[in-house]
Amino acid sequence: MSEPDVLLLRQKIHGISVDDYAESMRERLPDADVAVAETPAEERDLIPHARVVAGFNIDPEMLERAENLELFACSYAGTGHLPLDALEEAGVAVTNASGVHGPNISEYVMGALLSMARDFPRATRQQEQRVWQSFGTSELQGSTVTVVGMGAIGQAVVERLDAFGVDTIGVRYSPEKGGPTDEVLGFNEIHDALARTDSLVLACPLTDATAQLIDEEAFKTLSPEATLVNIARGGVIDTEALVGALRGNAIGAAFLDVTDPEPLPADHPLWAFDNVQITPHNAGHTPKYFDRLTEIVAGNYEALQESGEIENIVDESTV
Amino acid sequence: MSEPDVLLLRQKIHGISVDDYAESMRERLPDADVAVAETPAEERDLIPHARVVAGFNIDPEMLERAENLELFACSYAGTGHLPLDALEEAGVAVTNASGVHGPNISEYVMGALLSMARDFPRATRQQEQRVWQSFGTSELQGSTVTVVGMGAIGQAVVERLDAFGVDTIGVRYSPEKGGPTDEVLGFNEIHDALARTDSLVLACPLTDATAQLIDEEAFKTLSPEATLVNIARGGVIDTEALVGALRGNAIGAAFLDVTDPEPLPADHPLWAFDNVQITPHNAGHTPKYFDRLTEIVAGNYEALQESGEIENIVDESTV
Repeated sequence: MSEPDVLLLRQKIHGISVDDYAESMRERLPDADVAVAETPAEERDLIPHARVVAGFNIDPEMLERAENLELFACSYAGTGHLPLDALEEAGVAVTNASGVHGPNISEYVMGALLSMARDFPRATRQQEQRVWQSFGTSELQGSTVTVVGMGAIGQAVVERLDAFGVDTIGVRYSPEKGGPTDEVLGFNEIHDALARTDSLVLACPLTDATAQLIDEEAFKTLSPEATLVNIARGGVIDTEALVGALRGNAIGAAFLDVTDPEPLPADHPLWAFDNVQITPHNAGHTPKYFDRLTEIVAGNYEALQESGEIENIVDESTV
Repeated sequence: MSEPDVLLLRQKIHGISVDDYAESMRERLPDADVAVAETPAEERDLIPHARVVAGFNIDPEMLERAENLELFACSYAGTGHLPLDALEEAGVAVTNASGVHGPNISEYVMGALLSMARDFPRATRQQEQRVWQSFGTSELQGSTVTVVGMGAIGQAVVERLDAFGVDTIGVRYSPEKGGPTDEVLGFNEIHDALARTDSLVLACPLTDATAQLIDEEAFKTLSPEATLVNIARGGVIDTEALVGALRGNAIGAAFLDVTDPEPLPADHPLWAFDNVQITPHNAGHTPKYFDRLTEIVAGNYEALQESGEIENIVDESTV
């Protein structure tokens, strides 16, 4: 019976198998015993020995059996679903996958902004009809891009915008922290930003402060030519207000990786607008997902061995 | 009867009216008489006085009447269609629109690369079927992008790639001139570049050296996962070889603003591949087209007045 140092619970993310995670971890930590629990029974049997357990979630029953557990490494960036109180009581540190998504989600956002500027969806529709007909486009250069949320993803977007000659506004809960944008405003000043915005990128966590942040009033302030990109959570937008804005030609375009409700029901009006592009909550997909997660989790395993500092700790300031 | 200093011939480009050009020129040159010829008769009547004529082309009969002409400012970047010998004989300088396209075409290219990396065309097809189903993607970061042609457009692409964490290879006729890419190779070394290429961007003029540059041999060298973006001219690619590579799953994706033949006939196989995106030669469109052209042409009008240096002169080195 194996007594693993690191136990990977059953998980697959965006179609990538946990075996890729194990391969990556074993390569990075050749001296550690890294095990994959293939079944619920194996999860129960293998967990008592492990110092580090990695997965999407850990239930209270499993937590009780995890006698040697020092670190639960969540494979998601968001950790609102975890039994954080029980974990704290058990003296288990919790880390998240924050930072894994910087490259892929920022590439998604840049692709979304540029697709809409160049109206690639129209080209796709013309191609289906085999119509060769030139059409006008807009241009990112010289426009104003507002990014709501200045975490790892928001910052990665702003870095990639730099060479495109745009003005940038950051909106965040704590504007006094500053940020890489030309200006940084608080949530209470968001209408000042929206009034000048050509492209609005939502990259904030869903909290009480951000729920339904983009509501009917926000759509009134936004330019009718503005492009909205949401890679945060569907609930950051008031869906009914968005549908109303689209129906009234009061917004230019929307590019949505997340929706509310999600998944979007087949009869939902959002599917059918010409100027809406929907992706199935896969902006988080990257072929490098487990490679980048390994960098965080293997580094933290080493830190535990050497009494070093754990990275990506989930605490109040993360949420 | 007006005796204009600057005459704008009849032209509209990508759906933008010559009136926008006139408005922009008059704003920029308040002391000059800027006229628009609205009809063939007006072109003939107005041309004798003008020092500067701007348009797509000038025919020999018009050139004969243009007694005061010092500069013909072509509204296209390419000038292969002009009667260059007759213009030279008449002592008329010729300029092109090179540089106008840097921002818009580089935005197109970045949008194309990112759309294909994120497989947005698949999202569009799923949206039409109202299917919410996650799917895998690739990632630009860590990949190698090869840009063929290091003119204003190629350089603008490389500038925008900088923050995406990619390796870049430039391929140009005169590699000794260097360039902004990590490496610069000559056309004779193109296979060395193709063998390492994940994304291939064609941004070169169509010349004897570049005609059918991307041929059957090139597709043999390229990775089966490579993405090809063509914003040069259709003839830089051997279309039959491209169709063969697509049919044989020997190339990842193609994003084509130009084709050979062009426009693409309705029964052409290129229209129907899932991993081909076609746009109708409109990468050159920008709402700022005439604003940026005005900067060149008005600046040159002033240079003529002050015996300064003319920019964007068409000569051997431009072609």
